Amino acid sequence: MFVAEALNLSKYAAKKLEEKNILREALIPHSFFSDVIEAYRFDKKFGEIEEGTLVAKTTNGVKIVRGFPKIRRALTLYPTLLKHFGDYVAVEEKMNGYNVRIAKFGKNLYAITRRGYICPYTTEKARDLINPDFFNKYSDYVLCCEAVGEESPYVPKDIYGTKFDFYVFDIRHGATNKPLSVSEKEKICEEFGLKYAEIFGIFETKEAHEVVKDIIKKLGREGREGVVIKDPEMKREPIKYTTSETNAGDLRYAFRYFNDYGKDFMFSRIVREGFQSFEFKESEEEFRERCLRLGMAILEPMIQSIKEVDQNKKVVERIKLRFKDFSVMNLFLEHLRRSGVNYEIVDLKKEGKDIIIIIDRVMKSTTDKIKHHLKGNLW
Amino acid sequence: MFVAEALNLSKYAAKKLEEKNILREALIPHSFFSDVIEAYRFDKKFGEIEEGTLVAKTTNGVKIVRGFPKIRRALTLYPTLLKHFGDYVAVEEKMNGYNVRIAKFGKNLYAITRRGYICPYTTEKARDLINPDFFNKYSDYVLCCEAVGEESPYVPKDIYGTKFDFYVFDIRHGATNKPLSVSEKEKICEEFGLKYAEIFGIFETKEAHEVVKDIIKKLGREGREGVVIKDPEMKREPIKYTTSETNAGDLRYAFRYFNDYGKDFMFSRIVREGFQSFEFKESEEEFRERCLRLGMAILEPMIQSIKEVDQNKKVVERIKLRFKDFSVMNLFLEHLRRSGVNYEIVDLKKEGKDIIIIIDRVMKSTTDKIKHHLKGNLW
Repeated sequence: MFVAEALNLSKYAAKKLEEKNILREALIPHSFFSDVIEAYRFDKKFGEIEEGTLVAKTTNGVKIVRGFPKIRRALTLYPTLLKHFGDYVAVEEKMNGYNVRIAKFGKNLYAITRRGYICPYTTEKARDLINPDFFNKYSDYVLCCEAVGEESPYVPKDIYGTKFDFYVFDIRHGATNKPLSVSEKEKICEEFGLKYAEIFGIFETKEAHEVVKDIIKKLGREGREGVVIKDPEMKREPIKYTTSETNAGDLRYAFRYFNDYGKDFMFSRIVREGFQSFEFKESEEEFRERCLRLGMAILEPMIQSIKEVDQNKKVVERIKLRFKDFSVMNLFLEHLRRSGVNYEIVDLKKEGKDIIIIIDRVMKSTTDKIKHHLKGNLW
Repeated sequence: MFVAEALNLSKYAAKKLEEKNILREALIPHSFFSDVIEAYRFDKKFGEIEEGTLVAKTTNGVKIVRGFPKIRRALTLYPTLLKHFGDYVAVEEKMNGYNVRIAKFGKNLYAITRRGYICPYTTEKARDLINPDFFNKYSDYVLCCEAVGEESPYVPKDIYGTKFDFYVFDIRHGATNKPLSVSEKEKICEEFGLKYAEIFGIFETKEAHEVVKDIIKKLGREGREGVVIKDPEMKREPIKYTTSETNAGDLRYAFRYFNDYGKDFMFSRIVREGFQSFEFKESEEEFRERCLRLGMAILEPMIQSIKEVDQNKKVVERIKLRFKDFSVMNLFLEHLRRSGVNYEIVDLKKEGKDIIIIIDRVMKSTTDKIKHHLKGNLW
């Protein structure tokens, strides 16, 4: 098997990999993906190999794109930053979209989601928006980007004033996952005209908790998500930290679809609020605001969903997408179906050369749960 | 085995009961429990036999006290009550304490907790507070009571203006679990001077959702828990429904000890708030109040716990108990230890003839979790 070979696995490890049934197909075969002969993704972590790792047999050889490592979270900035970093930290914006790795296979760019799927929608966007010259100079490297905007299939947000765009936050070697330093990344992005997540600066670690607190409050007011705090040399693992407004936004989403979302997701966001409020030493007034924001983030969307079901509607998430090509659109819809997403097409139209499709992602579990109780059934 | 025999189990069922390891000792042998030779509780449901069922070999024969059946919950009053009941319903107060079944074995009363333990503390109270004459006339019956008050080992509350008391809500036949009607229960309680949970009245089911809504709002303002809605003849299963203030109170408790409590506990209380707010068609102002109440119920206690750990304290629940007898106190402390409760004695003193003990129940998981993060460890 070319995957085991590419990763230099021992015979024993190769056998384990097969037994554990960890490899899954990473794409739906299609002419849009013509540079890829075969590709597999790691559905789980395997030894050192991260979940979401992709191994592809392509027209120019076997390529490895390691999974993007989980970024762990600080619950309090102090003393966490001091404990984890050296003398200096870089503070960058954590944008609210979805994580994509972009690589070049054969003659074209490919966009890989967190779990290791080659996504047709994101791939079409990458070919449209990313300067491929980068890959001439750095053919073994991968652009780790946040895909953001209103026309996002996974995390639609209108806060960035864009329909869809990529912001690079890491440049990593595909096969080893080794990242370039923050300054190298910045230089290369400037050189090739790649947009990148804002770098707020390099700070002394001993004052970073105060700096980050101020940045977080400002980002919160602007509806932005949070920060990633990095070793400027990228020798240590980064740490993330988010605004109260983002925690509330996550809860808003989770409680709108409360029976489709895990309780762990809700619980962790609530606990973050507790630790942040403690650390930020808020005034009485700020604290009441945080409590009200939390309560409304929970109840408003839940009640909206209950009302919709009471009016015989389904609870849905409405998504607007834009394609250049009908066959890519169909490929993407097939990709959604295979991912277990239950959707309905609401509208389809042309806008200039673009195809605009509106789909409703149906939240069946939440809809059914509400319907059950509104009919008078007990908990 | 006398348990299988008492319950008339087939040989096959008796074998299953043993294999599944469902029976557990129901008490710690002690002279205080001298009427009981041996007693077992059902740690799980077994066929028709409810979890918490107790079977005791006593000095006057084998006695069965069936487990108290789970009362299911309405998420919306309408159309749930119409769907589940006949023409009339009785509405009673659901008090906020712990569920106890009181029975007479040999010459003395015994108090059995929900899970089927004979509790030394509650038993001492029952012998002090309950008129035993009831059992002369109804020897095969059990008093199902809410044990409430400030000096409660499990649910201390000061809302009822009592240190400790029992309020009967059901009278059931021990071996069959068959309940008496609401009016029979009321008559018998009056006859023997037993306190009972307030009966708000018998109402036409078709208007009950409006009646209950008004009762619930009033109870909420008074800090009381909620209602149980019953078939007056007790031929159908009762249904419970609680105030928003109680949901918030439950959350307050759960988030104070957030790592010792289940996420299901929190989630269910939050969802109740959503359905109640929807059904009660609140004003903007009432809705904001509900959101603020919810947010504060979550964040205030969590932050209190974080602050305490930050000051090198442990997160504890402080409990004040009153005993008549030292040996019962020691028996109860042993009972707590065996139940896996981690506690420390804070104070011990005499008050007249009573022994007063103050204990701190240590919430180790919450304490450790907070300490871990305050030291700078990642989530």
